[in-house]
Amino acid sequence: MTTAPFADRHIGPDADDERRMLEVVGYGSVDELMDAAIPEVIRWHGTLDLPAPASEAETIAELRALAARNTVAVSMIGLGYHGTHTPAVIRRNVLENPAWYTAYTPYQPEISQGRLEALLNFQTMVCDLTGLATANASMLDEATAAAEAMTLARRASRSRSPVYVVDADTLPQTVAVLTGRAEPLGIEVRVLDLAAEELPVEFFGLHLQYPGASGAVRDHAPLVAAAHAVGALVCVAADLLAMTLLRPPGEIGADIAAGTTQRFGVPMGFGGPHAGYLAVRSGLERMLPGRLVGVSRDAAGDRAYRLALQTREQHIRREKATSNICTAQVLLAVMAGMYAVHHGPDGLRAIARHAHGAAVRLAGALDAVAGARVVHTAFFDTLLVAVPGRAAAVLAEAAARGVNLRLVDDDHVGVACDETTTTAHLTAVRDAVAAALGVPAGPALPHESASPVLPAELAGPAVPAGLARTSEFLTHPVFGAHRSETAMLRYLRRLADLDFALDRGMIPLGSCTMKLNATTEMEAITWPEFADVHPLAPAGQTAGYRELIGQLEGWLAEITGYDAVSVQPNAGSQGELAGLLAIRAYHLDRGEGHRTVCLIPSSAHGTNAASAVMAGMRVVVVGCDPDGDVDLVDLDAKIDAHRDTLAAIMVTYPSTHGVYETGIAQLCAKVHDAGGQVYVDGANLNALVGYARPGRFGADVSHLNLHKTFCIPHGGGGPGVGPVAVRAHLAPFLPGDPAGAYGSGRPAISAARYGSAGILPIPWAYLRMMGAAGLTRATGVAVLAANYVAARLRAHYPVLYAGNKGLVAHECILDLRPLTKATGVSVDDVAKRLMDYGFHAPTMSFPVAGTLMVEPTESEDLAELDRFCDALVAIRAEIDAVAAGRWPAGDNPLSNAPHTAAMVAADEWPHPYPRSVGAYPGTVARVGKYWPPVRRIDGAFGDRNLVCSCPSPEAFED
Amino acid sequence: MTTAPFADRHIGPDADDERRMLEVVGYGSVDELMDAAIPEVIRWHGTLDLPAPASEAETIAELRALAARNTVAVSMIGLGYHGTHTPAVIRRNVLENPAWYTAYTPYQPEISQGRLEALLNFQTMVCDLTGLATANASMLDEATAAAEAMTLARRASRSRSPVYVVDADTLPQTVAVLTGRAEPLGIEVRVLDLAAEELPVEFFGLHLQYPGASGAVRDHAPLVAAAHAVGALVCVAADLLAMTLLRPPGEIGADIAAGTTQRFGVPMGFGGPHAGYLAVRSGLERMLPGRLVGVSRDAAGDRAYRLALQTREQHIRREKATSNICTAQVLLAVMAGMYAVHHGPDGLRAIARHAHGAAVRLAGALDAVAGARVVHTAFFDTLLVAVPGRAAAVLAEAAARGVNLRLVDDDHVGVACDETTTTAHLTAVRDAVAAALGVPAGPALPHESASPVLPAELAGPAVPAGLARTSEFLTHPVFGAHRSETAMLRYLRRLADLDFALDRGMIPLGSCTMKLNATTEMEAITWPEFADVHPLAPAGQTAGYRELIGQLEGWLAEITGYDAVSVQPNAGSQGELAGLLAIRAYHLDRGEGHRTVCLIPSSAHGTNAASAVMAGMRVVVVGCDPDGDVDLVDLDAKIDAHRDTLAAIMVTYPSTHGVYETGIAQLCAKVHDAGGQVYVDGANLNALVGYARPGRFGADVSHLNLHKTFCIPHGGGGPGVGPVAVRAHLAPFLPGDPAGAYGSGRPAISAARYGSAGILPIPWAYLRMMGAAGLTRATGVAVLAANYVAARLRAHYPVLYAGNKGLVAHECILDLRPLTKATGVSVDDVAKRLMDYGFHAPTMSFPVAGTLMVEPTESEDLAELDRFCDALVAIRAEIDAVAAGRWPAGDNPLSNAPHTAAMVAADEWPHPYPRSVGAYPGTVARVGKYWPPVRRIDGAFGDRNLVCSCPSPEAFED
Repeated sequence: MTTAPFADRHIGPDADDERRMLEVVGYGSVDELMDAAIPEVIRWHGTLDLPAPASEAETIAELRALAARNTVAVSMIGLGYHGTHTPAVIRRNVLENPAWYTAYTPYQPEISQGRLEALLNFQTMVCDLTGLATANASMLDEATAAAEAMTLARRASRSRSPVYVVDADTLPQTVAVLTGRAEPLGIEVRVLDLAAEELPVEFFGLHLQYPGASGAVRDHAPLVAAAHAVGALVCVAADLLAMTLLRPPGEIGADIAAGTTQRFGVPMGFGGPHAGYLAVRSGLERMLPGRLVGVSRDAAGDRAYRLALQTREQHIRREKATSNICTAQVLLAVMAGMYAVHHGPDGLRAIARHAHGAAVRLAGALDAVAGARVVHTAFFDTLLVAVPGRAAAVLAEAAARGVNLRLVDDDHVGVACDETTTTAHLTAVRDAVAAALGVPAGPALPHESASPVLPAELAGPAVPAGLARTSEFLTHPVFGAHRSETAMLRYLRRLADLDFALDRGMIPLGSCTMKLNATTEMEAITWPEFADVHPLAPAGQTAGYRELIGQLEGWLAEITGYDAVSVQPNAGSQGELAGLLAIRAYHLDRGEGHRTVCLIPSSAHGTNAASAVMAGMRVVVVGCDPDGDVDLVDLDAKIDAHRDTLAAIMVTYPSTHGVYETGIAQLCAKVHDAGGQVYVDGANLNALVGYARPGRFGADVSHLNLHKTFCIPHGGGGPGVGPVAVRAHLAPFLPGDPAGAYGSGRPAISAARYGSAGILPIPWAYLRMMGAAGLTRATGVAVLAANYVAARLRAHYPVLYAGNKGLVAHECILDLRPLTKATGVSVDDVAKRLMDYGFHAPTMSFPVAGTLMVEPTESEDLAELDRFCDALVAIRAEIDAVAAGRWPAGDNPLSNAPHTAAMVAADEWPHPYPRSVGAYPGTVARVGKYWPPVRRIDGAFGDRNLVCSCPSPEAFED
Repeated sequence: MTTAPFADRHIGPDADDERRMLEVVGYGSVDELMDAAIPEVIRWHGTLDLPAPASEAETIAELRALAARNTVAVSMIGLGYHGTHTPAVIRRNVLENPAWYTAYTPYQPEISQGRLEALLNFQTMVCDLTGLATANASMLDEATAAAEAMTLARRASRSRSPVYVVDADTLPQTVAVLTGRAEPLGIEVRVLDLAAEELPVEFFGLHLQYPGASGAVRDHAPLVAAAHAVGALVCVAADLLAMTLLRPPGEIGADIAAGTTQRFGVPMGFGGPHAGYLAVRSGLERMLPGRLVGVSRDAAGDRAYRLALQTREQHIRREKATSNICTAQVLLAVMAGMYAVHHGPDGLRAIARHAHGAAVRLAGALDAVAGARVVHTAFFDTLLVAVPGRAAAVLAEAAARGVNLRLVDDDHVGVACDETTTTAHLTAVRDAVAAALGVPAGPALPHESASPVLPAELAGPAVPAGLARTSEFLTHPVFGAHRSETAMLRYLRRLADLDFALDRGMIPLGSCTMKLNATTEMEAITWPEFADVHPLAPAGQTAGYRELIGQLEGWLAEITGYDAVSVQPNAGSQGELAGLLAIRAYHLDRGEGHRTVCLIPSSAHGTNAASAVMAGMRVVVVGCDPDGDVDLVDLDAKIDAHRDTLAAIMVTYPSTHGVYETGIAQLCAKVHDAGGQVYVDGANLNALVGYARPGRFGADVSHLNLHKTFCIPHGGGGPGVGPVAVRAHLAPFLPGDPAGAYGSGRPAISAARYGSAGILPIPWAYLRMMGAAGLTRATGVAVLAANYVAARLRAHYPVLYAGNKGLVAHECILDLRPLTKATGVSVDDVAKRLMDYGFHAPTMSFPVAGTLMVEPTESEDLAELDRFCDALVAIRAEIDAVAAGRWPAGDNPLSNAPHTAAMVAADEWPHPYPRSVGAYPGTVARVGKYWPPVRRIDGAFGDRNLVCSCPSPEAFED
């Protein structure tokens, strides 16, 4: 290694910084600090058994070698994953641009207007293409979106039937996830071939695929009407590209639409990540789970975007939440929305016609092959081809020609056309079929005409009468104004510039671990060998992926001390559910299905409770003592009260208070003694790696957040990856393969076997470059940084909770409540004022209302830590000025924060403090300052006047 | 093709826009407009014979296929090109970031502070590492930097001798370029082996390589002293990495240092582009050619950067200029400077020690191989190995092991170690030598120790006593403050954010053609198969490159109507020189060496004149008539006066006035009749492609600018590529191969045979995607856009010059002189005020002082064209307000422009117009406005108080 090891690039403080920080905290070394901070009872003194760290160049070379072991074939498998051309301008300027990918969830909307606008585009696109009123932004994949639709239907249906009907022509992975989700909730999924079978008399909901997994296009309107007649709701899983040509769900009466936006420019990535979507008809919008962007106004009355109806979310509603979804797929939703902006309605229609035209041409060619038959006469882009007894042979012949097809059964293959399909691909398929059948192939295929499919043809043989779309879509100017690449590039730049991401400054979000997403970690994910692989590609084509995933799972097991890991859950929330379902399955397997009580401390993240309910458990809350730790006395009481039905306890470690609780080992023992399982939420694993291993200090299962501890960027609110890690006795209950899980008893958690496989090179690279010593040092420095911030700020804001020797773990809680009480200056005011100082706010009011939770992470150097502490010290002086009456309570730099450039440059300045105090407080540089684009946003106004798609330009003129 | 063809992405106006623009201009179609605008005498009505346009995806697939035909071997060839690890954070955030690569030359310093700071880092790095006082930013490559040093020495030396001594241990390509440059200037290059031969009695300069091309490290101090004794200046071509360990040129008395910064993180790219450097001792700084960044102050007295001493440059001094260098290598200089920022002095030292340590270990291993001998005992990273009679066999054995070595002669090979060298590479070399000699290889090589070479060892066998560097370098804090990737990423973002590039808005620079640099065009250049290839790699490893270059040269010949093209010149200025040298050689070859007069119109770019002088010609100026066209009467007179000595005429077409001159065919005929050659400067080819071909309408030679017409981004002032295109009779005189040109009679123009080969995939992709029709349409739309702007602005500013039917070509000149005379508002005021409106200024005062030349290009859509026209109309109203006395002459929005955020947000506002007029004139959006970071810069102050390296932080506190 010729230069600084990667750990020195990842870890912000250098040796000098570290020494100065240790002085302030009062320890001689990081080791001494960690010895003091971590309870000996959980402390692990071993060395992680990981490969010696590789340099950045070596890591890229190893990744290239792994990539070379994947084969990029022409994928015509379909089943919800299609070839697509990612527009290069979007790949480079969104997916490969830290301004987009290092952003956090837009909880601070004033400094997130760019990605909020991008997500509003996404919502508008989904609404327009589905013909429904309101869409969220976004879901984790099509299968989980369908599962959310199922539970939404149950809440909204007036039917009390437990039956959810799923048409047999649904994607198998969707059926697998629906089944897994239904069982603990007491929902009975009934899969029926509705082309042949009748609907049952009673059911609360109906799931239809449109077009079907087989490719068949059917008019679902009669089924929709029949469902409505018995009070059931209907979810249509619609292919959005097909919806440019076919009557959309909203126009055939569907209540809900769910699906994926993958083929809108997002690479297949061996299964993910992609943005799922969920849209509902008018009247259901307040029941939508997940994140919904809405339009509101700021303090100047100007239009501004923010997340709407957040009170629906599980961090507010906890066990009463209707979904545990938290992380979305923001980065991918931005890409899909921008794909629609880039192509506009005409471009999307042309792409759809290309795919449809290819299918039509192929159908014609196959009909000329003796012994082959195209089963359905009505289709969009996918054909079901009967090749009696020769399906496997057809697949082999196609593979030999570089094309992957779908094996449906011994007698049938599926062929899906898409944006990337060429005449050569169609010829290869036709030739493969002919070769497998041992008959002549026939003449050359016709070339694509300039306008491959005329609307008139849609009413012809390939699409049933009346199903051709006649309504307009994407009529908002945003879908037409950026057609040239120059315009598109500037639009992406302008939106990115509105936002504050890690590439501008510190984002000290407690519990969220906003640390470096190093470029070397990011590079491989856009290589074709990782990006352009179908999740169901033959195993022989994915050796590189599977080796990488196997190594990653192994390294994560080593780090956590567990015995088995599954990377399938594609968000932390899904990891929680997977872990709890494993516990549930374990108890059931032992004949202890009555164990359904899940103990959750009052300090827990709301998602824990929501997940427990989804896993069919009953939540019982355990109190905390005045130090913020789990109250072991109350724990005893709750265990006593529920000893026979105790399924699990779910705790976060270090606690959500940012403290290494000393009672953790006792806690584990008590629960185990009562027959329960211990679930340790891995959200705070950044404070443990190398120093303690949950799988060895008493826990049975954890989920991890690869987008926290392991450097997958937050992407503005996703993608995330939430692997579930278990001890050996739970290993048989890890998620099943969604392609084969249906009926296997191992429920699938995500649509794809390896979840968001496409981004797993990121944590792989991080672990490969850090090695055991680097990872351990990162943990120590993260804890040092939190204690440094606590030490520097303690005199200005009380630090809530501490553990051993007054030390915090990797984050600290600053208590604003006394100041708020005395001055009226709220935690919100401080958070917004930090924007003026050039920072993203810490976590607000979690886990304790009225506080700020700061997690500096190991990646911030001392200069940035000091800049942050200095800002908070200066803000404390501003609060004091309000307290002293120097500035009125309602008109001061805090209450008016954030200050926009337009505000401080306005001709009038009616405020009782100088403009410079608003604009350039403290030592904020006059050159290159980041300006929040809007003033403080009125969220309640937006919730009352809900607008969730792009407002017309005229509306902007108001 | 499923979606919009690429031409529709590249060309800004869509059909609707085009229709509206044609209405304003008064034509029914682009064809009609072009028929009217272009003189029929040059109009070509054929169709370019180019491949049918490929889609973006097809183009990438074809480039991947070409890339696959290049082999990335381990390069140990050396000779000025070394393996290097480009830090991923720099590759992604500089080389792959449009904010950096779409920027223009920082002639408008107020909106270029980011890249000016980056270039100041570069200059500081070069000064520190060479030990000299002043460095420029930057040169085109090492060989041309050495040539500039030679002519600088001639100007500065008190010796009248024509002899320039070049040590024989100099890079062969440097010798080739020096020889080519010297001959027309009457300089006699004398190559001497100064290790054995004596210096001549008289000479004006001395060139020394340090370390030598052979790898030998010698103490050059005695030679320096000897040269100084006879009044000669000394240029040391120093390897900057070696200078971290060896006494630098400045400390051994050198006057000048020249070289390359390639190994500072810039990929080899089959020869380029890389930033060359040139540094001089105190007292010579005002003689430095090229671009020099200096520190000055703005209107508020704050520190600000700008280009210094621009009066030295050829566009001011014309034929009196000392160099024709214009485009530099800004993007690559930024990368090299950032490499130093990323690694800091300790990191660079560690990299140097690694390379040196590898060479020491290899030397030890080779000494153990019977029959092999390491020739020099003092070396840095390169060994000369004697393998009597077996050199070719050693190369073959090494190649079989994946390693490329240098074939010195039958008995010697060269082996260069670098940052990327591993023990496995060293072992392969040792084994190859042993195998070729048929002897045992010996034991395993020692592994690299943690600290491979101790300073003490440097005084040992590998480095002569007294040559170890003892002085500090890179002590400025910037080289230490961005060690973590987080800090580095933010530094790069912060600097990028200070600047205005094409990704923010229009840059309507006349003559510079700032059009779209599409992402698909850019993608391939950072693929390893194009980036990591040595220019002297065996031909069998570069088939893909050579096919791509051959196709590109062929397509360019087709477009221009010439018979042969060479891509070797790595900037337009070099293309000019190459073309003029071809003319010179042609005349010499015909025994007409007395033909040395070059006619140049008074409107020509200054570079033309400077190039002519460098080609040994005498410039005679031809006047222009009142319409701005070449005065054919004066042309006749000048031809008559110089008929016998007429070498050439050099004209730009369309003229630099932006007009299709109708007399061009006559002009060509007249010159040809007098025995002269016609050189058409291809700067304005964007107005000809598809409509007229210089090689067919009378010209003999042109250079093109691939960074203008053919979409290589300007990179903030380079890289450029300036191919030379000639008719058949001049083809024998195209540039020679620098690796073999020495003594061949065909002078080399650049250090590498294919110049900046690494970026040729950009124009290749552009041509591949546009096809004949797309290129032709681009030309038509560019001309339409210029005429649209002229039509819209004519009522507000007189449009100077027009051709047929009052039409301009692809650009138009707005005459500010009457307004300036009436109001005092200068062209500068308008240019700076445009920044407040969110634009980069057009070209100022070229070709006519007091005017603005606007070239909108085909890539700007109508919305952006209108935004620009609206801004200029609004500015005209502001000028009128000054004229009317509403605002005083010295204190108005124009004279105070640009307005910074700090200025308009200041507590005091002493100006007679409201802040909003300063900040948000016209329809400038309040959200997302680009703010110039500094106020108007005082260039003269900086020239008087020349500071050209990073000022200390304390200095900033002044």
